[in-house]
Amino acid sequence: MTLKSKNCIVGQSGGPTVAINASLSGVLQGILESNHYDTVYGMVNGIEGLLQGKYLNLSQRFDSIEKCHLLTHTPAMYLGSCRFKLPTCEHSEELYEELFNFFEEKEIGTVFYIGGNDSMDTVLKLSHYAKTTNKAVNIIGIPKTIDNDLPVTDHTPGFGSAAKFIATSLLEIAHDTYIYNIPSVTIVEIMGRNAGWLTAASALARTSYSPAPDLIYLPEVAFDKEQFLEDLKALLKVRKNIIVALSEGIKDLEGHYLSASSNAVDAFGHKQLCGVGKTLENLVKAELGCKVRSIELNVLQRAATHCSSLTDLEEAVAIGKYAVTLGAQGETAQMVCYHRISDAPYEIAFKGHPISEIANLEKTVPPHWITEAGNDITAECLNYLLPLVQGEPTIPYKKGIPLYASIDHLHTKGYFKKN
Amino acid sequence: MTLKSKNCIVGQSGGPTVAINASLSGVLQGILESNHYDTVYGMVNGIEGLLQGKYLNLSQRFDSIEKCHLLTHTPAMYLGSCRFKLPTCEHSEELYEELFNFFEEKEIGTVFYIGGNDSMDTVLKLSHYAKTTNKAVNIIGIPKTIDNDLPVTDHTPGFGSAAKFIATSLLEIAHDTYIYNIPSVTIVEIMGRNAGWLTAASALARTSYSPAPDLIYLPEVAFDKEQFLEDLKALLKVRKNIIVALSEGIKDLEGHYLSASSNAVDAFGHKQLCGVGKTLENLVKAELGCKVRSIELNVLQRAATHCSSLTDLEEAVAIGKYAVTLGAQGETAQMVCYHRISDAPYEIAFKGHPISEIANLEKTVPPHWITEAGNDITAECLNYLLPLVQGEPTIPYKKGIPLYASIDHLHTKGYFKKN
Repeated sequence: MTLKSKNCIVGQSGGPTVAINASLSGVLQGILESNHYDTVYGMVNGIEGLLQGKYLNLSQRFDSIEKCHLLTHTPAMYLGSCRFKLPTCEHSEELYEELFNFFEEKEIGTVFYIGGNDSMDTVLKLSHYAKTTNKAVNIIGIPKTIDNDLPVTDHTPGFGSAAKFIATSLLEIAHDTYIYNIPSVTIVEIMGRNAGWLTAASALARTSYSPAPDLIYLPEVAFDKEQFLEDLKALLKVRKNIIVALSEGIKDLEGHYLSASSNAVDAFGHKQLCGVGKTLENLVKAELGCKVRSIELNVLQRAATHCSSLTDLEEAVAIGKYAVTLGAQGETAQMVCYHRISDAPYEIAFKGHPISEIANLEKTVPPHWITEAGNDITAECLNYLLPLVQGEPTIPYKKGIPLYASIDHLHTKGYFKKN
Repeated sequence: MTLKSKNCIVGQSGGPTVAINASLSGVLQGILESNHYDTVYGMVNGIEGLLQGKYLNLSQRFDSIEKCHLLTHTPAMYLGSCRFKLPTCEHSEELYEELFNFFEEKEIGTVFYIGGNDSMDTVLKLSHYAKTTNKAVNIIGIPKTIDNDLPVTDHTPGFGSAAKFIATSLLEIAHDTYIYNIPSVTIVEIMGRNAGWLTAASALARTSYSPAPDLIYLPEVAFDKEQFLEDLKALLKVRKNIIVALSEGIKDLEGHYLSASSNAVDAFGHKQLCGVGKTLENLVKAELGCKVRSIELNVLQRAATHCSSLTDLEEAVAIGKYAVTLGAQGETAQMVCYHRISDAPYEIAFKGHPISEIANLEKTVPPHWITEAGNDITAECLNYLLPLVQGEPTIPYKKGIPLYASIDHLHTKGYFKKN
């Protein structure tokens, strides 16, 4: 299907990453450089926001390449996000009609949708509707997720920056931990519910003088708490301070999340839900009796632009530009992907891939990249990860804090309404 | 007392900061530049480690200014730390004799001790013993603490970097939070048991488009949970996403820590101790029913060199150098201090101050720098804080993570033993 209309629209959805605005910036830059489209609109709060009539004119806001640069290193979503499962067109045809009427009214020929697994489901469904109803609207998915769990693409935009923040933090935690001359266990809880990529990336923290993390537990391996305690005891015989990286998503031998806990109540009588780090902190304290601390890296993993990977941001811009090329060629029902040519020297290419072979599928850490003991990753896995965290972008600062793009429109009424 | 001996020794103790090695670097640079001392030794694990016979020859390790630079931006303590309350010389004279015999044996004329409140108690006691026994050893304290709670000095080395990390993180959390179009409360728990300086510094995160943190609760003000809920309800009427900064040390109206909780047990039957952030997260969830999340910034506040303040690191080096000058002048029983000349343009001077007027005292946020409602800081407080977070050092990176000085000697046997 070739390009029949003159405008396009872009949306973002799912959880934030440090690079998702870099891909938006890439789309905007690609359009400015190519003149493939007259006007680019932006959905506010994703497809859900668009259904509520919320959108922006991005061509007015970003009328020069220079204005796009600030966006490249602004965390989370400039356009806002949503967590919205688009119903199938068989069940909610009127919803699709509404969307495609809006596309027609605004002469929108291409929809770019930046997101993770759920967002690619939206790309799949919109593509399916456009095809079955013969609408001249191309739908292109642009990946993003710190979890790195999308199939086909070598890795996902946002993952490298999250990995860099995690590895940097782990090294700094090691310096913080080694100063006391008493045995200690430090447990660092890392994001990733089903895929252990981020936790695996903690291994990038290792230096000639610091073996931290000493142990790495991924959700891909069933977690045996007795073995965990044995692993710790063995290490405490040879080293003073043990640092453990573990995924928030680890499950016990029966397949239950360790983080889902208890009927415990707190000081106010309210139910407590502590994370897996805290749960294992309590276990180690009770069973080994040594000093123990748990640290949850929390949302900074996906928001710490001040510690982002230059490789990640540059690739995220480039894949956004590539999406514009692909859209303008009339391609549809595709997600743009990274294809790795080599690890060292690191080289990638871009390609489109049918969304039907990507949406609703999940890529986890393969078993042969996890050591036999199940508590570390292999050298091959490290070779895969290493190029993704290289380079540091120059983030401008103002009054001592990073200068990011204003997101004032997300909490005021600075957007259009359809009606 | 004039300088009678040719060598000196330096130690570090208490909790880590990002700038404590910068002050060590300053001492080493001051000695290299001045030739005031022949050899500089380093206690390993502070005064406690020295009593166990652990020390290093720092002159051998740092024989050029260039070698000191890596130390300037290495987090935590190169020399290791201790948490050791030196008994009084009236009670444990043999311990003091042992230390001062070592100083005599090594011809040590000056002891530099870098630390916070507890470490200044050590400086006071060593000074007292030297004076009463007429020992020719000068004792100079060099401040460090992220808590900024030492009196006399305008601020403390390490505080500015922690403040910068907190403000940067708060802004990034704001970007992360504003993307969803549903009401939410985000609670950020910040270090500072009795002094609210770090929590106050969260106000530096505010920009033209982001008012976060909307509410700031310091330990200097009794925390009224009913008022807290009212504050939130009022704000949720006008804004979608509320971000709260609160100190780990806040106490209820009866003076009890909110973080000390409960007889709750977790999945393994172990007692749970959740922080104040988690406790208030549960409260808000139960009482307001909106989306709520708590985030503990944890040890990265004191370890995140990758986000340190250039002003802080430069001042920390300079105060270390000044300590060398003061020590070589024969001064003793003093802590080196920052004296602020003006806020804008920001200007400080260095001075020594009697340790007896500093040790065991605590500086909290003054009442007139807290708003009447008790949930924010004043503009005057912000003017005080602003200069301390300015500037970004150039941190070298290697393989995608910061290049810090090796601390291999802290977990191997790379140090001397007295006996």
